[in-house]
Amino acid sequence: MIAEASRAGIGKLFLAKLGGMRAHVVAFLSQLMVVGALRPDDARLAAEHLRALLEAEIVEPLLLDARDASPSDGEIALAVERAVAAFLKAYAPAGH
Amino acid sequence: MIAEASRAGIGKLFLAKLGGMRAHVVAFLSQLMVVGALRPDDARLAAEHLRALLEAEIVEPLLLDARDASPSDGEIALAVERAVAAFLKAYAPAGH
Repeated sequence: MIAEASRAGIGKLFLAKLGGMRAHVVAFLSQLMVVGALRPDDARLAAEHLRALLEAEIVEPLLLDARDASPSDGEIALAVERAVAAFLKAYAPAGH
Repeated sequence: MIAEASRAGIGKLFLAKLGGMRAHVVAFLSQLMVVGALRPDDARLAAEHLRALLEAEIVEPLLLDARDASPSDGEIALAVERAVAAFLKAYAPAGH
């Protein structure tokens, strides 16, 4: 995907498709901010930060072909758990 | 870089070069954990999370060629500020 991103605007097309999913995440995070489960902030920024944290441990090494094997389900689950824990701390409501 | 990652192990070579920088960041974050400026946690994980947050707003759209222009210095500075703010909250010592 990234290798061909500049060809025929395929990168833009891919991002546009992602946009639909992203909108759902932004709406969900906005609701969590409204009900006080997360501190009020830019929900779009929060969504970018959440995605980045979710990708932090696994996606970059995969992109660079620096892994010898696909991550196991357990490895993915652990990375997701750590990412969500960091995100919830970063966006915790005041006093939590 | 990513487009050619699987060729001649260049992705692995790139990651190995990055490893030196990464080690510095891990050592720095470890020190901050030792002196209590950050909560104690896996400094390697913290470094991955910091990198991911720093890349969250700008790098992915650039990789996908979905930006029409390079980010301005101001835009980069703002993204870095937001990333560091989120990171410091995520890794704040208990009670902060």
